[in-house]
Amino acid sequence: MDKNPISTQTLRRLPVYLDHLRTVTTPRISATAIAAALDLSEIQVRKDLASISGGGRPGVGYETEALIVDISHYLGYDRRVKAVLVGAGNLGRALAGYGGFSRCGLDIAAAFDSDPKLNGDDIGQIKVHPMQELPEFCRKNRVQIGIITVPAKSAQEVCDALIAGGVRAIWNFAPIHLSAPESVMVQNENLVASLTVLSRRLTERLEKDHN
Amino acid sequence: MDKNPISTQTLRRLPVYLDHLRTVTTPRISATAIAAALDLSEIQVRKDLASISGGGRPGVGYETEALIVDISHYLGYDRRVKAVLVGAGNLGRALAGYGGFSRCGLDIAAAFDSDPKLNGDDIGQIKVHPMQELPEFCRKNRVQIGIITVPAKSAQEVCDALIAGGVRAIWNFAPIHLSAPESVMVQNENLVASLTVLSRRLTERLEKDHN
Repeated sequence: MDKNPISTQTLRRLPVYLDHLRTVTTPRISATAIAAALDLSEIQVRKDLASISGGGRPGVGYETEALIVDISHYLGYDRRVKAVLVGAGNLGRALAGYGGFSRCGLDIAAAFDSDPKLNGDDIGQIKVHPMQELPEFCRKNRVQIGIITVPAKSAQEVCDALIAGGVRAIWNFAPIHLSAPESVMVQNENLVASLTVLSRRLTERLEKDHN
Repeated sequence: MDKNPISTQTLRRLPVYLDHLRTVTTPRISATAIAAALDLSEIQVRKDLASISGGGRPGVGYETEALIVDISHYLGYDRRVKAVLVGAGNLGRALAGYGGFSRCGLDIAAAFDSDPKLNGDDIGQIKVHPMQELPEFCRKNRVQIGIITVPAKSAQEVCDALIAGGVRAIWNFAPIHLSAPESVMVQNENLVASLTVLSRRLTERLEKDHN
């Protein structure tokens, strides 16, 4: 096993392998079969899996269950990480209601919103608290991740409150660049950037078809 | 200007530059200032901007307005692309209500949902139609992009209906691998994969702090 930081691209594919393996009913599976099911190259699959599991054998493949355990363990899905969600609008509700995060080890302990009308509401199974309680809640509950789903104009203020509460990482869905100290990781989920990639690639494709 | 396909990473940064430039009040701006504001390296900024604009001058920088126009044009934000949204749940509503897509040239022409109770509803300013009207609507309105925000179990069926309607690209928010012919682009917005990257990097960071 490789102890160097794994590449982001491999890391993004590992949960995809995991989802697929959970639907596999045979005790063994080959890299060829995984590659075919997920439209990936066989070399890619072998390389990705070699970085986290010693279990693949030529001509035999992987033990399905063992590979599921190896990937889950590598990804830390068997540890629990505590998060809070800030912004109880549609996007916040969508994230709160999504069952998949818990399987990845993420517990969303509480939600926060500046709208007093939402205080005490449940979104999914998560209670909405007033914004002013945020830093203290994070400190008391040793919250590590803050998820920001507020509009761009409030995002920096929310980011500052999360940092005051001692979170170590921010998952930012607001379309704005956040300032944070180096000790706090910020991961931006920029939907406009994703859409831009899709539109541009589509345009390139259509122009090619046209020529 | 480079006519080769631009890298995905550069493409993802261009809308971030654009957002920032729109807040800039000076007629000229240097790569140094952009880099500082967005926590990027100066070399990165120069390289990214060189690929889409010939306008930067040593010691002078870029004309702010001209750079905005160059990036917008390069990204095709001055063209209109038609999309439909399938799934009028919280995530669908969040996307429908998000103003930023229109500025990128995307028009969401209609939403679709299999729940008859939602038919005729407005989400944002978009009308919800019954699922069975999807393929015909797409064909009649020359819809190019289908956005999937339904649960994983219905996503492949929705994908097939979009393809039957002639869409050329799918923006998939359902956590499942979709099968589509090669002529249709699929871009997956895998939130579990993003969360996994964030958690893993956080763990690496905390372990390093601990040692």
